Amino acid sequence: MKNWISNSTDNNDMVLSSRVRFARNIKNFPFPHKLDEDRGKSLAKDIENTFYEIEEIKDEFNNVDLWEIGENQGRNYLEKHLISTNLLNSRNKSAFILSKDETISLMINEEDHIRLQCITAGFNIKEAYEVANKIDDALEARLDFAFDEKLGYLTACPTNLGTGMRVSAMLHLPALTMKDEINDALKALTQLGMTLRGLYGEGSKAEGNIYQVSNQITLGMKEEDILSNLEAVVAQLISQENRARDQLLGRYKYELEDKIYRSLGVLKNARILTSKEALDLLSNVRMGVEMSILKDIDKVKLNKLLVETQPATLQLVTGKELKAKDRDIERANLIRRYFDGK
Amino acid sequence: MKNWISNSTDNNDMVLSSRVRFARNIKNFPFPHKLDEDRGKSLAKDIENTFYEIEEIKDEFNNVDLWEIGENQGRNYLEKHLISTNLLNSRNKSAFILSKDETISLMINEEDHIRLQCITAGFNIKEAYEVANKIDDALEARLDFAFDEKLGYLTACPTNLGTGMRVSAMLHLPALTMKDEINDALKALTQLGMTLRGLYGEGSKAEGNIYQVSNQITLGMKEEDILSNLEAVVAQLISQENRARDQLLGRYKYELEDKIYRSLGVLKNARILTSKEALDLLSNVRMGVEMSILKDIDKVKLNKLLVETQPATLQLVTGKELKAKDRDIERANLIRRYFDGK
Repeated sequence: MKNWISNSTDNNDMVLSSRVRFARNIKNFPFPHKLDEDRGKSLAKDIENTFYEIEEIKDEFNNVDLWEIGENQGRNYLEKHLISTNLLNSRNKSAFILSKDETISLMINEEDHIRLQCITAGFNIKEAYEVANKIDDALEARLDFAFDEKLGYLTACPTNLGTGMRVSAMLHLPALTMKDEINDALKALTQLGMTLRGLYGEGSKAEGNIYQVSNQITLGMKEEDILSNLEAVVAQLISQENRARDQLLGRYKYELEDKIYRSLGVLKNARILTSKEALDLLSNVRMGVEMSILKDIDKVKLNKLLVETQPATLQLVTGKELKAKDRDIERANLIRRYFDGK
Repeated sequence: MKNWISNSTDNNDMVLSSRVRFARNIKNFPFPHKLDEDRGKSLAKDIENTFYEIEEIKDEFNNVDLWEIGENQGRNYLEKHLISTNLLNSRNKSAFILSKDETISLMINEEDHIRLQCITAGFNIKEAYEVANKIDDALEARLDFAFDEKLGYLTACPTNLGTGMRVSAMLHLPALTMKDEINDALKALTQLGMTLRGLYGEGSKAEGNIYQVSNQITLGMKEEDILSNLEAVVAQLISQENRARDQLLGRYKYELEDKIYRSLGVLKNARILTSKEALDLLSNVRMGVEMSILKDIDKVKLNKLLVETQPATLQLVTGKELKAKDRDIERANLIRRYFDGK
């Protein structure tokens, strides 16, 4: 798999990444929210040890016990989409195992005992699924997962029962957002058992016009059907977005180019940039690159900025603890350096 | 004298130009608004002929009869501050004589028969006055000006009675405008018999933060006192503006730099720019240059853009009759070319 931040794919421009995750729990253990700190830590270490028994892959991974690291370092993993807010919130007993290329992570004592996640660049959901499936099989051969013949995999929240599988893609949909057609798209998705959310998951707003589309239903459907459904829905969003872009280009060519070039001009020159404005401007520039209006801009650079300009990652990148205003200044500095050094 | 558009002076950054104009009328002729077309044209030709009798300067001048040229060409002179809206509005009988360096103009059949104007770069009001005075003396030796021992020079509007002299300076006052202190400055000026107006004279708004300060009173004051008063008031405005800039720099350094650099970024990149936005952005960039925040930007370039991005001049520069939207596109193109070719 390719790391979505440091790779760009040609298979489809506007899909930044594809993701699969499995929720699994260990039989005869309480779900994490009922697990006290000592038993939680002990289970986490057990799962880590079991994972490293898988000979073929163990050298590719590192593990992090969240009770051992600072909160900012933790937030950085969050902003890279490698861990969840939930995992961070239970950091007195939670841990994760992460592949060196940061495409595979296994969260321990998040909402469930195990959350296995594979994330790859571009529109490649089947590839992510195959990798996740192999690791899941290897774990299942060594651990006693809580499983019910009728309900499938048992999970802390009933919305994950059954396959325990959530598949998602991260899409850049600026034209649908601009034309205010995103809500219609959302309605259609809901009827197909899919949901559309902002960049940082449930409840987060679609900053930078980046959306996550994922399956809502995990029970009573085959994994293959869930995958096909997601592929179909993503393909449909791509075609809607492309149509919306063509319409914008047809009717508002100059306005669109103006928006894209101004955004580039501001990114290259601003001395103060909030996280929200940076995301919006980066989205406009990304659209310009995707539509071949802007040349000579590396999409990987835009991916990196998407992550590095987020508050906690920014502090790690710059190596400073920063107040909000100073963050906005450092963010502008960082972005200027990226564009100057192209 | 130096043309204010194509020269920058070091004597004071924020004063773009200094201007003196005399209002004169020919005895026994009705004021222009009472003059029919034929008699108006004939008087205009007489005044032109008399002017060209002044041997020392006649080779430096050209004359334009407005009834011979198109309206757009006329508006271009207006935007360069060489003629007035009034002159353009009476273009069936009005004319003007213009020095080749465009520092001296004589408008014929504007509100008065003769409006002699000298405009020079920077804060040089005395220089402009001396030149205007010499030409006025040479004309007075040849023409019979309407003059009353008690009232002084007779003019169509009583506000010009007496000296018939209006002196003004064009100032760039962005910090006073930003800090909303311009109205206080205005009040103080009024009490000194001075007035502050926008870029294009009476009733025009201060677009691009450029203001004209001029004397309100022409009667009962000596010319020398009017000149000294203007100089004092301009000096005061300069010092107020400088204090406001220092305060902004002290308290809002990053915000100020951000505004200046963003403006530059937008000017260099936008594909659509209205006249108003262009003036505002150029003002911010000018402030950056004046405060030495921006280096490597030629102030003469900013002067030229100030004029060339105005609607009618833009059409002359680009050689096209343009609709509003197309003007905004051409304006953005013109500005990008200026900055790319620095």
